[in-house]
Amino acid sequence: MSRYAASFDDVLAAHERIAGRVHRTPVLTCGTLDELSGRSLFFKCENMQRVGAFKFRGATNAVLSLEDEIASRGVCTHSSGNHAQALALAARQRGIPAWIVMPTSAPEVKRRAVEGYGATIVPCEPTLEARETTCEGVIDDTGATLVHPYDDPCVIAGQGTAARELIEEVGELDVIMAPVGGGGLMSGSCITTRAMLPDAALIGAEPVGADDAARSLAAGELIPQTGPDTICDGLLTSLGDLTWPILRDHLQQIITVDDSEVIEAMRLAWERMKIIIEPSSATALAAVLSGGFSSVVGDRVGIIFTGGNVDLAHLPFN
Amino acid sequence: MSRYAASFDDVLAAHERIAGRVHRTPVLTCGTLDELSGRSLFFKCENMQRVGAFKFRGATNAVLSLEDEIASRGVCTHSSGNHAQALALAARQRGIPAWIVMPTSAPEVKRRAVEGYGATIVPCEPTLEARETTCEGVIDDTGATLVHPYDDPCVIAGQGTAARELIEEVGELDVIMAPVGGGGLMSGSCITTRAMLPDAALIGAEPVGADDAARSLAAGELIPQTGPDTICDGLLTSLGDLTWPILRDHLQQIITVDDSEVIEAMRLAWERMKIIIEPSSATALAAVLSGGFSSVVGDRVGIIFTGGNVDLAHLPFN
Repeated sequence: MSRYAASFDDVLAAHERIAGRVHRTPVLTCGTLDELSGRSLFFKCENMQRVGAFKFRGATNAVLSLEDEIASRGVCTHSSGNHAQALALAARQRGIPAWIVMPTSAPEVKRRAVEGYGATIVPCEPTLEARETTCEGVIDDTGATLVHPYDDPCVIAGQGTAARELIEEVGELDVIMAPVGGGGLMSGSCITTRAMLPDAALIGAEPVGADDAARSLAAGELIPQTGPDTICDGLLTSLGDLTWPILRDHLQQIITVDDSEVIEAMRLAWERMKIIIEPSSATALAAVLSGGFSSVVGDRVGIIFTGGNVDLAHLPFN
Repeated sequence: MSRYAASFDDVLAAHERIAGRVHRTPVLTCGTLDELSGRSLFFKCENMQRVGAFKFRGATNAVLSLEDEIASRGVCTHSSGNHAQALALAARQRGIPAWIVMPTSAPEVKRRAVEGYGATIVPCEPTLEARETTCEGVIDDTGATLVHPYDDPCVIAGQGTAARELIEEVGELDVIMAPVGGGGLMSGSCITTRAMLPDAALIGAEPVGADDAARSLAAGELIPQTGPDTICDGLLTSLGDLTWPILRDHLQQIITVDDSEVIEAMRLAWERMKIIIEPSSATALAAVLSGGFSSVVGDRVGIIFTGGNVDLAHLPFN
């Protein structure tokens, strides 16, 4: 029994469960970015995952882990981001209903994406309290199961499968990096990496405008995020009770970058790699290119590109 | 001895010559585009080639094919597009000078890209005649060798290596498609495909605003392109004396698409595949999604995405 919410055995079981439903995404390299960083970078392209984000791994594992009787009553979450689309598609694939609680302020394009996967949107006021009470109301009414965006053992185990594929494909790595929002991906990556590459350093990346994980790590206790201010719309949340202990015990450090560094890293990926990554995705690349990375030892660095969902009509490039 | 400018043996020799210098680009698939087209599509991502376009294959083969004595005097071409960057980098890699004749009307960003690879830009008036005479002047002055963007046996053989990698990776294909500008890529792809998959159909794609190859094929004679009008800035040229006979004898058909279809296909690749392709690249995907493709027999379709060089500050999306 692991002392954490998920063990590497859980990651292995998740990987078997979701095989054939999730893409085995490519690992890409880029000579220009290697030169700029002075390292050998390996990018796990979860921006090319179904629904355009790694979130589909955890959501699929959570949905497939439900007993038939429970599953038939459906699933529910509150999210306006990639987890909403991921859960909607995972539910549709299993043929069960999904309710997505979404603030009325969410962009039309995000509502349409979720509806396109056949989920029911339940509108609420744009506050965390309204989200949670609305979600509880849906669950009371329908008997649906909550699938939290990150603080859920099945979600953490599912997200850990991305790092497993990365390490399987490229072998030895000195460093594994990912952005930190609620910590689902990073905690899953910690579990996997510690099991497969015991000596690799685990490093998180955060925007300075939502640096709660960096502050939590420095303080040694979970500090919630309040008033986030960053272009990285996937990294606004606080850590969870399940993800925080895993990050606390495994992360070597968290490197913070400002939004201008994020946009520059995003532009480099678009222009040099010819792939579309969203701002939240670009934080880890920005961190590798920042001065804060110079003290990190090791040549071979694995980076998880988390997602590629952007509004092409509103890009941050001039 | 082949009756054409390049044989499959030339493609094989080119492939050996350029190995290690050009990327073996990934072949990607996309469930959404398979559903939309009703076929199984395999995309050879030359947008991820060095300099962001397949042109680097042909330019590298041409530069490496030169005898040392000839090579030392450098190479020259007239182009403001991807061939200019490709030749500049290929020359730098061999350590020889390159002169790129470019119209004064070319965007600053293209001049800087070529200069970034260490080539010398020779400005000229924006007419074909001025380009050619300026190029001849440079050659007279320097002894440099002209490397034509497409009407050159080494260039055609080099471009044929992309289709070889595609077929090696995915095996049997019913159709091979590529955009047609000057015909370098398409003619190389014809030579390779006829040798490796004798029964596969070869289909070109062109914008209606630069449909000289479609009209040439219909007329049975080379009709030059005059007054092109399309967003596909890589497909404005006429066919060449070397590429035309290969296309004439191998192409099953050319499907033309209008610019709105091109932009929609480009948007689909960006949004669904999360990769950046330029408008010229999108013509072949637009053709597969068009009504004109419905009569084409076969499920497995290989498509060469030719390049990904776009100005992120000026995109055709609303």
